[in-house]
Amino acid sequence: MGLQQVSGFHDHGTSPIETDALVIGAGPVGLYQVFQLGLLEIGAQVVDSLPYPGGQPIELYPDKPIYDLPAIPVCTGRELTESLLRQVQPFRPGMHLGQTITSLSRHDDGRLLASTSQGKAFLARAVFIAAGVGAFEPKRLAIPALAALEQRQVFFRTSELDLTCPGTIAVAGGTEDAVEAVLTLSDAGHDVVLIHRKDAFDARQDQLDRLHALRQAQRVRVEIGQPTGVDIQNGEMRGLEISAADNSIRHIAIDRLLIRLGISPRLGPLATWGLALERKHVPVDTASFGTTEPGIYAVGDINTYPGKRKFIICGFHECVLAAYAAAAYLRPDQKVLMQYTTTSPRLHELLGVGGSLP
Amino acid sequence: MGLQQVSGFHDHGTSPIETDALVIGAGPVGLYQVFQLGLLEIGAQVVDSLPYPGGQPIELYPDKPIYDLPAIPVCTGRELTESLLRQVQPFRPGMHLGQTITSLSRHDDGRLLASTSQGKAFLARAVFIAAGVGAFEPKRLAIPALAALEQRQVFFRTSELDLTCPGTIAVAGGTEDAVEAVLTLSDAGHDVVLIHRKDAFDARQDQLDRLHALRQAQRVRVEIGQPTGVDIQNGEMRGLEISAADNSIRHIAIDRLLIRLGISPRLGPLATWGLALERKHVPVDTASFGTTEPGIYAVGDINTYPGKRKFIICGFHECVLAAYAAAAYLRPDQKVLMQYTTTSPRLHELLGVGGSLP
Repeated sequence: MGLQQVSGFHDHGTSPIETDALVIGAGPVGLYQVFQLGLLEIGAQVVDSLPYPGGQPIELYPDKPIYDLPAIPVCTGRELTESLLRQVQPFRPGMHLGQTITSLSRHDDGRLLASTSQGKAFLARAVFIAAGVGAFEPKRLAIPALAALEQRQVFFRTSELDLTCPGTIAVAGGTEDAVEAVLTLSDAGHDVVLIHRKDAFDARQDQLDRLHALRQAQRVRVEIGQPTGVDIQNGEMRGLEISAADNSIRHIAIDRLLIRLGISPRLGPLATWGLALERKHVPVDTASFGTTEPGIYAVGDINTYPGKRKFIICGFHECVLAAYAAAAYLRPDQKVLMQYTTTSPRLHELLGVGGSLP
Repeated sequence: MGLQQVSGFHDHGTSPIETDALVIGAGPVGLYQVFQLGLLEIGAQVVDSLPYPGGQPIELYPDKPIYDLPAIPVCTGRELTESLLRQVQPFRPGMHLGQTITSLSRHDDGRLLASTSQGKAFLARAVFIAAGVGAFEPKRLAIPALAALEQRQVFFRTSELDLTCPGTIAVAGGTEDAVEAVLTLSDAGHDVVLIHRKDAFDARQDQLDRLHALRQAQRVRVEIGQPTGVDIQNGEMRGLEISAADNSIRHIAIDRLLIRLGISPRLGPLATWGLALERKHVPVDTASFGTTEPGIYAVGDINTYPGKRKFIICGFHECVLAAYAAAAYLRPDQKVLMQYTTTSPRLHELLGVGGSLP
């Protein structure tokens, strides 16, 4: 067990981005890790699988209140993210969104080489895994042939679709997200087919009312059943096979498919990096939040240690100790000074605030 | 080493207050400890040496900005305290301010018996030491005889003085606090003598201007020198001996003395409770933040463990794990459930919020 050793960058078309710290995960803990590193003058690049920062709170409960963050009696996942983004702003981290780290290996010179699913590469002196419950990925249909069509004819977010292209778009799903996508696409003038296993949708009343009106006006069609196959001709999707509850099968012609079945976190490639794992979590030392690999730290829900509780506030503490441990690791010849943002002129300078110099 | 064992409450005139949890310290960490205990339905009583909650931030930098609390880009010590007080409000902790815990011992039945400097007693199933850098106490003059006069003729806060009593009041000190006290007392019609080792005061310009005007009007007198003795007749203070830089000595007649030399934290009686200490800090286990004594936890700046950093955010994390450990200790027959404030109807009920029930 252990990270793969490499001695060159031959796999990469572009030269890797060199950085002191690579933070994997732009959720609250990843963002606060960037902040704590910034206070210690360690620059960071951030990678996240979602196309926007915020992690679980922004993806799972952007508008639901959180009551247990200290000194914040109530805030939503979105407000939490906005505050943290404002806080890291002085440190201008490089943000690399919508991509996962597909490999992590150690270079000859001790640095860590990480590659993303979008072909980017990073050469980092320290890596902070703040990957939460794993990379959020859209749930897929159990039709293997669709994989090759992703981002060409098969999509997971409305924003990925070029709305100027004509043709029929099928939307698969039964939730608010699916219904909202149907309304948006219909408003944009498209023929839309909504596919769901039953004629009942878990959406807001105003969305249901609009959906009903569009169906009455025959501008939206609903197909009851499960997609079980795809019609491909010359590498191009022409239609879907829909299986109904009574096992009858229909074929519908479509040009594009938008899958809105929700998202789920997957540990994903992290499991293949060679790090020691305990029940899908990364064991760490509570003095440094370091893993068994020098220079690799794990913070937040992804790590495990005696007493571990998966609360955001615990992840924040872990960021502080990991940042201090990394500062000692990256600058072994310097004593790491404890400084307080209330009193340190140097921290005021880094934060770009007036502070209160004597 | 270890806590003293007791089998009765004979030392206490009043019966002790029985509580699940006694939190020692009402600073940010003590308050957040109350909040985390409240989420686990563990009621708490809080004791602090200061006459108001807030601890170091409210005492040392009430109006200075703090920049490193997660998702709070900036707040003052006062704002931090106000937010935390709002957060603990649903749990209505008993607050016992302006007193220190003078003794802590273990009762026959395993509970912990704590007595305060104001004669209160608590019988607690668990104790959380959130005592920061120790109990803040006003700095005293090096004149032992003054101790017996405290709260009769010798005071440390302007608010402790009965302003309706006539007579001359001496104020010792050279800071903003001392000058402000002089202005307040003079405004209330008192003869005031300000005693300081030099004729220069570290105060705001508007305070200095007012002090100058009062001296010109002979309503305030300034004595340059250090108080080195006290004139006592029949147990009553009649005057002070002031030694000047040239070793000359003067005696001034005063009726009351207000000492405004600032405050400093003292570990105080904690050192005598019988807990194991390491360089004036309480060693804890990072899985529970428990001490070597069952049922006694230590959180925030007072504790020590490998990697410890004295940041508020670290103390907040420690509160979470200590609360969960205490829940398991107090209710050994029940599994402690992890609940999130975003989703738990029970937590919404405890917090008195609408939440988002389906």
